[in-house]
Amino acid sequence: MPVLEQDPETIEKLTHLGKKLVNELNNKMSPYFERPVRSLSNVKYDPQSGILTLGDKKSKRTFLNIGHARTFMQSVLIASKCKELIKNQRSASIRELYYQLKHTVPGLNENTLEGQEESNPVVVDLETALDALREYLHLTADRSGNLFGPLTLEDQGDRIDCLRLGKSGLSIPSIVDDYKFVDHDANYILVVETGAMGDRLAEEKFHIKNKAIVISSQGQPSRGVRRLTHLLHTKLEIPVYIFTDGDPWGYYIYSVLKAGSMNLAFESKRLATPSARLIGMTMEDIEKYDLRRVTEKLKGIPPKKSGGPSEDYKRALELKKYAWFSHNLWQKELDKMVAMGVRIEQQALASKRLEFVSETYLPEKIKKQEFLP
Amino acid sequence: MPVLEQDPETIEKLTHLGKKLVNELNNKMSPYFERPVRSLSNVKYDPQSGILTLGDKKSKRTFLNIGHARTFMQSVLIASKCKELIKNQRSASIRELYYQLKHTVPGLNENTLEGQEESNPVVVDLETALDALREYLHLTADRSGNLFGPLTLEDQGDRIDCLRLGKSGLSIPSIVDDYKFVDHDANYILVVETGAMGDRLAEEKFHIKNKAIVISSQGQPSRGVRRLTHLLHTKLEIPVYIFTDGDPWGYYIYSVLKAGSMNLAFESKRLATPSARLIGMTMEDIEKYDLRRVTEKLKGIPPKKSGGPSEDYKRALELKKYAWFSHNLWQKELDKMVAMGVRIEQQALASKRLEFVSETYLPEKIKKQEFLP
Repeated sequence: MPVLEQDPETIEKLTHLGKKLVNELNNKMSPYFERPVRSLSNVKYDPQSGILTLGDKKSKRTFLNIGHARTFMQSVLIASKCKELIKNQRSASIRELYYQLKHTVPGLNENTLEGQEESNPVVVDLETALDALREYLHLTADRSGNLFGPLTLEDQGDRIDCLRLGKSGLSIPSIVDDYKFVDHDANYILVVETGAMGDRLAEEKFHIKNKAIVISSQGQPSRGVRRLTHLLHTKLEIPVYIFTDGDPWGYYIYSVLKAGSMNLAFESKRLATPSARLIGMTMEDIEKYDLRRVTEKLKGIPPKKSGGPSEDYKRALELKKYAWFSHNLWQKELDKMVAMGVRIEQQALASKRLEFVSETYLPEKIKKQEFLP
Repeated sequence: MPVLEQDPETIEKLTHLGKKLVNELNNKMSPYFERPVRSLSNVKYDPQSGILTLGDKKSKRTFLNIGHARTFMQSVLIASKCKELIKNQRSASIRELYYQLKHTVPGLNENTLEGQEESNPVVVDLETALDALREYLHLTADRSGNLFGPLTLEDQGDRIDCLRLGKSGLSIPSIVDDYKFVDHDANYILVVETGAMGDRLAEEKFHIKNKAIVISSQGQPSRGVRRLTHLLHTKLEIPVYIFTDGDPWGYYIYSVLKAGSMNLAFESKRLATPSARLIGMTMEDIEKYDLRRVTEKLKGIPPKKSGGPSEDYKRALELKKYAWFSHNLWQKELDKMVAMGVRIEQQALASKRLEFVSETYLPEKIKKQEFLP
């Protein structure tokens, strides 16, 4: 059985691009690509859909332009290789892609690619130009994260019951678009920031007792984790709750899962889950659950002090300025963090009891629907 | 069903320690711990067993010593908490352990622990003093890595067929001592350095076609990956091959899996697999498979040049001096790397064909038993 199914839509996009270039050549025009500008000036937050998107600015890459010719050649090479991958139902990492395409240009003493720093941006160019996720081009990213819960899925013809994977769980690959969700009995999806918290919940059998699909992102979520969260939410139609450390970095992880990230803004509609809610940790938790003595000091210098704001303080104030943190409750939350000068980790809940997080903290918050927007 | 089984041997060790301390108190002696010195001066390579071990140097920690009293108190706290964990058949991350034990000492304005930098070394002290793996104390480390292959194991009562996990695979947890290996049909265990190479082999169905248990360590191997490799090798009695990038960092990963690491030398006998062999990448591969143009330059300054050796060069020459790299073939390999001034990545094999690594490179080397020792 082939690894990935052929995707006629993406093949069609790539074929269309190729035909367009050939037509231009036949008509003695300089062939060109057009693609949305990806710089921050063209990244916008759309409050309607709740995601980061690219604006209307476009730029052209023209073959008959001495500054563009090399990347133009690279773009055609990569587009052609991606078409081959899809046709052959194979995938490749962007590192493998680089090695596959690195060769001497016949007749010239020049390499097609000098390093992956040349091929990576061209891959992203293609993704935006074609409006096709990297995964649709059959290019893989690094995997991380794992999953537990009342979900049966089909992966390469194997039927996997994610409730019967002990405390190990399913490793989440880079490409999850080919998963078939066969059956589920889940009330919601819970994405947790740290691997250790995922392990805690698995040990407590939280996923079984609460009928929850628990995804542990192990830090900044991989594309696989983001896409899987999006797909599960869309197809299973159950809510997504995110559980991070109570610090600017955890809250940014939340926003990436919810609204998308700035450098992949063009893919938010396929990677983000705008209806996701933050379950914790919050600054309010510190008082409510009497956690003051297990907080940690924010790193860096507070605002209004000489040299400040720096490090954690600076990051918290940056978040405050992002449009997707403009909600009143988020402004208050971030102000409170800066004023208190502390952060609170997920694992600090262990100071109550190991099982406190699974028996009390999470179920109570979910029952009362006590979330940050 | 409980998460982990009670381990009478470790409980006995902890009980014995407690009784010893109480006896000393009853006899009006100053209670003390004794443990092997863990500094590099006491780390030895044992060519007989092929692993790094600790030498005979011991040091004492005495309660009635102003410099030891605080860590003594912390050691007793942690030992007591570990006993509780084992009795309750629970585990905790070392971060949770820290949070569980951080409190004010009654009657004093002092915390038991000020930071995890205080509790972590005490955990390692206990491990060495008791000659008990951290996993036996039910303390978990960060997980990473995944597994594919013809192996059926039992984890928490769930029977998992690792040949039927699609391209996702089993996520490898921190504690694998409780795995029951029910059945297998594997010829060998192949541990690969990068996640992307693990994904490549999964896509090629290498694990199915070659009856191989493929473990992807995703960089520096976690304790779970090291322990699992050791356990699989010991219990299944099949060879272990390691597949890393051809650079000093990849070779060090190999040596950690094979002989143990310097800072966990006291645990080598439970974490290392001395009979493991390196399958590649080697400097010889570059010529044999015509990979010269997909090598990368070593970083840093070569020896004998001003400012050299630095970075990759320096690391390669450091490896040369380690006793566990003293084999003639390793000395040649490292000399060759420094002389050629290049490194070669696993994924560079994609420059031939994506399936070259799975159809040609690995099977040929295994058939010819072409390994570095």
